[in-house]
Amino acid sequence: MRNVVIKMMFDGAGYHGFQRQNNGITVQETVEEAIFAVTREKTPLIGCSRTDAGVHAKNYVAMFATNTKIPMSLLPKAINSALPEDIRVMGAQEAPPGFHPIASAVEKTYEYTIVNRRCMDVFMRDRAWFYPKPLQTEEMCAAAKHFLGEHDFAAFMAAGGSAKTSVRTIKTLSVLEEDGIIRIRISANGFLYNMVRIITGTLVCVGNGRLQSADIPAIIASCDRRRAGMTAPPHGLMLLETVYADFTVGGSTDEKA
Amino acid sequence: MRNVVIKMMFDGAGYHGFQRQNNGITVQETVEEAIFAVTREKTPLIGCSRTDAGVHAKNYVAMFATNTKIPMSLLPKAINSALPEDIRVMGAQEAPPGFHPIASAVEKTYEYTIVNRRCMDVFMRDRAWFYPKPLQTEEMCAAAKHFLGEHDFAAFMAAGGSAKTSVRTIKTLSVLEEDGIIRIRISANGFLYNMVRIITGTLVCVGNGRLQSADIPAIIASCDRRRAGMTAPPHGLMLLETVYADFTVGGSTDEKA
Repeated sequence: MRNVVIKMMFDGAGYHGFQRQNNGITVQETVEEAIFAVTREKTPLIGCSRTDAGVHAKNYVAMFATNTKIPMSLLPKAINSALPEDIRVMGAQEAPPGFHPIASAVEKTYEYTIVNRRCMDVFMRDRAWFYPKPLQTEEMCAAAKHFLGEHDFAAFMAAGGSAKTSVRTIKTLSVLEEDGIIRIRISANGFLYNMVRIITGTLVCVGNGRLQSADIPAIIASCDRRRAGMTAPPHGLMLLETVYADFTVGGSTDEKA
Repeated sequence: MRNVVIKMMFDGAGYHGFQRQNNGITVQETVEEAIFAVTREKTPLIGCSRTDAGVHAKNYVAMFATNTKIPMSLLPKAINSALPEDIRVMGAQEAPPGFHPIASAVEKTYEYTIVNRRCMDVFMRDRAWFYPKPLQTEEMCAAAKHFLGEHDFAAFMAAGGSAKTSVRTIKTLSVLEEDGIIRIRISANGFLYNMVRIITGTLVCVGNGRLQSADIPAIIASCDRRRAGMTAPPHGLMLLETVYADFTVGGSTDEKA
């Protein structure tokens, strides 16, 4: 028996998140079924993040135990042959001793996309928030700076999370706008439940003038969810990367043929 | 009664092309039904191009006659309210006298996208051709040059077209590769049935070594469909733009909020 780490990407539009649910198909069960189809083993898949329904991932790390004799280098192609087209395994390798997709992570990066145009781009409809009113991105950039560093982010946490502490360290938070497409990119040592979506909703409130960038420190300090902005919709959110201390998970989206 | 020109974008994945068919839902009937929903008029929509099932459009020009009293500036939003999310009307304006979306066009531009990577990008699965074997893009660029100018493109035409002549003038044809994404962009005064998809398939045959770039002039001169390459799949194709001599159709995809 060995632990295999896989890196995968998925379009979350068709799934009720990563984690197995009673009320809809999830990424976890879909990949577990594909692993079963090629190995005949019922083995649980451990993910690097619970993701909400509709949330996407470009590099999602997961692990499962297996006795399969399929060579590691052929495993991605084998599993892909049993997966629907909206999930792809890009790489597989043996896990280092003691590795855990969540516990071993030291940094995660998410990207949130907003279409701030008069008309929605039909090709982005399942992976961006359509926000057709003007947003002052300079103000949003100014607000973003206040989030950097270690804070108690309880004001930016939805009920229902299981975290022991709401203190997190945000390492980078950028707001970039080009041709009406706003990309909010955020790296931290960890995220609370709905934290990226609530930070995004708060930045949008700064962009539309309901809040000022100078309000952010007091909102953080309040630890009061009601003072932060709305929770941005899930389908604009993408897990970009998970970083581990002494281990790089192979397999990349854009490896040339 | 006045003629209204609209500019729209659509994700072709859910449609059997633009033109009304017996065997599936098309963009034409979907937009005609939306126009009926807001104007109560059964009016035919005349498109700028027949597109195949699965083909997309970023700027698609179409025209219909109407007596509606809805102001022109509010018409896009009104029609959009009755359209599914994969079709958007971006602009509407009165047609100049004698205007016809096909007959008045002087130039069209298409883009064909190929994912030339080891693993498909799940977010491009409905709008790019996944081609996982190596392609020599320099050779494809060299081949592209031979297509430029006025030629009889009968070798690059599928049966079933209605064109009187197969002579067309290709104005630009570029092959650009970045991170394993190949974009073939082609402008001409008009296109034969499946012409872009057959040119793309032929360029891919040059890229994979089955043809040489120096073979292209003889293939064109042969007017023999069997000598050209395969027809690339429809879902990689996007109508980018249609140009008219004395008329610019307003409404843009990326107009900021």
